[in-house]
Amino acid sequence: MLQSLLFTKTRKEAPKDEVSKNADLLIRAGFIHKEMAGVYSFLPLGLRVIEKIKNIVREEMNATYGQEMQLTALQDKDVWEKSGRWNDEVIDVWFKTDLKAGGELGLAPTHEEPLTSLMKNFIRSYRDLPLYPYQFQTKFRNETRAKSGILRGREFLMKDLYSFSKDENEHTVFYDKMSKIYRDIFEKVGLGEHTYFTLASGGSFSKFSHEFQTVTSAGEDTIFVCEKCKMAVNKEIIEDQKMCPQCKNEDLVEKTSIEVGNIFNLGTRFSDTLNLTYLDDKGKPQAVFMGSYGIGIGRLMGTIVEVLADEKGIVWPKSVAPFLVHLIVVGESDEVKNSAQKIYDELNTQKVEVLFDDRDVRAGEKFADSDLIGIPYRIVISEKTLAEKSAEIKVRATGNTEMRPLADLKVDAIAVLDAF
Amino acid sequence: MLQSLLFTKTRKEAPKDEVSKNADLLIRAGFIHKEMAGVYSFLPLGLRVIEKIKNIVREEMNATYGQEMQLTALQDKDVWEKSGRWNDEVIDVWFKTDLKAGGELGLAPTHEEPLTSLMKNFIRSYRDLPLYPYQFQTKFRNETRAKSGILRGREFLMKDLYSFSKDENEHTVFYDKMSKIYRDIFEKVGLGEHTYFTLASGGSFSKFSHEFQTVTSAGEDTIFVCEKCKMAVNKEIIEDQKMCPQCKNEDLVEKTSIEVGNIFNLGTRFSDTLNLTYLDDKGKPQAVFMGSYGIGIGRLMGTIVEVLADEKGIVWPKSVAPFLVHLIVVGESDEVKNSAQKIYDELNTQKVEVLFDDRDVRAGEKFADSDLIGIPYRIVISEKTLAEKSAEIKVRATGNTEMRPLADLKVDAIAVLDAF
Repeated sequence: MLQSLLFTKTRKEAPKDEVSKNADLLIRAGFIHKEMAGVYSFLPLGLRVIEKIKNIVREEMNATYGQEMQLTALQDKDVWEKSGRWNDEVIDVWFKTDLKAGGELGLAPTHEEPLTSLMKNFIRSYRDLPLYPYQFQTKFRNETRAKSGILRGREFLMKDLYSFSKDENEHTVFYDKMSKIYRDIFEKVGLGEHTYFTLASGGSFSKFSHEFQTVTSAGEDTIFVCEKCKMAVNKEIIEDQKMCPQCKNEDLVEKTSIEVGNIFNLGTRFSDTLNLTYLDDKGKPQAVFMGSYGIGIGRLMGTIVEVLADEKGIVWPKSVAPFLVHLIVVGESDEVKNSAQKIYDELNTQKVEVLFDDRDVRAGEKFADSDLIGIPYRIVISEKTLAEKSAEIKVRATGNTEMRPLADLKVDAIAVLDAF
Repeated sequence: MLQSLLFTKTRKEAPKDEVSKNADLLIRAGFIHKEMAGVYSFLPLGLRVIEKIKNIVREEMNATYGQEMQLTALQDKDVWEKSGRWNDEVIDVWFKTDLKAGGELGLAPTHEEPLTSLMKNFIRSYRDLPLYPYQFQTKFRNETRAKSGILRGREFLMKDLYSFSKDENEHTVFYDKMSKIYRDIFEKVGLGEHTYFTLASGGSFSKFSHEFQTVTSAGEDTIFVCEKCKMAVNKEIIEDQKMCPQCKNEDLVEKTSIEVGNIFNLGTRFSDTLNLTYLDDKGKPQAVFMGSYGIGIGRLMGTIVEVLADEKGIVWPKSVAPFLVHLIVVGESDEVKNSAQKIYDELNTQKVEVLFDDRDVRAGEKFADSDLIGIPYRIVISEKTLAEKSAEIKVRATGNTEMRPLADLKVDAIAVLDAF
């Protein structure tokens, strides 16, 4: 894409009331726009990152028989009253609104109730189970405070998968599988080494649940990490569980972190209250055994920024970067411009995703913008590089900068970049 | 995809309160689920259709320098008060809600205000214009009545593009271009011959606007069609405009229709009230000239069902069908099952999208389901077809049924199907 056509520009400053590092950087670099506290729009660069993260998650969900669907934001009071969660004291983040035709509606803060209710149309017999519907859907939560940028929004995108199993055994097999898949996902988006599988409270559903916690000072959680086996325990249950659940090591290290994913054993909490049953192989009705598996997509994006950014700006891992290459032309001469254009065309032909900074601004500004935006590889074409029939390639994450022959880029740019 | 794994099943009946043909068929076939009047979830088959339509629209928007982004549902009262549209008497379909931290919010029924406000951060000079941001975003409209299925929802997905131009001339060039692109889109989704470019009221923005109206008895509009040049006039302005705007023909035919797209000249209605200006080439501030261009994605899906369905069920055009081929195995023998599985694998290898009905149910039920679901080509493998080393291919839209050699399908299935 030509940067001259991109409607966003980098900004010197984020809005004054923006106190989080993730939103400050993402606003200044043109990825998001703050509508109000906890409510952010996604601009073209930001939407590209969101789509990359969604596709990584989607691929993993589909590979484990996940079936993508999409529930609604507007919620019917009746079904939540049946489960006992319509009350503002039970769920304290409801947004509610009135229907002109009469009646009160809610904006979904989560989707256990409508999905459990929906599945009653499709689950009849043990032959129908297990099932794993999931969605990427906007959640609305009426948070009292919203000062963490896209880490904790009042409106945010979440992937939520729900498992419907015959019994606890079948549930547990899937739950364990999903916990491995979640590890792979955090690995793929570049947070693997900062993220801990964490034993946490099961809330109102069961004694324990599991979270994936990424260590960052921007987080609101405290975890106790076992550095031997990379597991952790959430502070909320540390009184119950003072040792590593895996290796029994008692020498745990306290860290500040953010929950980037969670997996819950819901048991029959919702199938009981909403009456979701199946007929077992003896024709006897049984409650469906459920689990839920969430990842906040925007939160994950914000966490990547918090954890990997440096003093110059954002540092995207290749897997989620809006573009792989930031091509920058420095100089006014036709020769330089034409060479850069040629490389741009070549990279497009090779299906490399490139943002081409073809703007008429000075080199220093282009370089500063490039560091701020954080695309993994910067390729500079200038009179100096052309004199050597080369381009200068800089790796954003390491700062490593070297010249490479244009001819090599024309043959296989990915191979050239991968060699760094 | 294996139909045995799909969690939806066809249903004999839609909910009793469902009076629209589109929702009745889509619910019975397992594409959507009714949460409440005017609020529908999209199940796996339905989401596939939505994504197909989005991709057709996205490709066209990107080809004309559209830049995809995503605004929010939650709306800040302040910006709508500035434009004068916060008032329930001005926009009579607002859903409003309260923020716990204090203050009232709205759920976006449309997005002119937040986008105009956002663009103030990026538009400064004439060099920045024109710009064409767009989104696929959920709109919320507190409709008093909602009896048209997914044709008129209280929560629905819309593509809305907004143009920001220097002046009316620049605007008009784009407006005309977009009107041609819209025609292409309706052509591509299979509604071309039923859809008329229609002169309509400009509402509060300008004297006239243009709509794309698809003829169907399910529609709520009345248009007067010129059958010579395929243009129409909306009844709302027929008193002002009693002839075809194109060829001046006065012999217009009255038809019932639904608006599937609209394009508006917004002029400086929003840039004036929200103070969106640019500096012209003389350094003088000028109001940005705006337009808006909407297509309801769910409505389009519902319209396709209304217009093309027959007494047996839905008939999807190839371009938006959830799958291209419905492969059906009839018979219990290993030979039949293995042959069908082989064809399924072959089609997947050829990147043909196939729903494979591998369920253990009788042939009649499979055929009825297949007609209801409406996938363009049905391919049947049975002992009878295998005796001729063939498969039976039926075109859903025409009913045309013929045998074709398995060998041909294995070489190039698309070529075999295209020849029908």
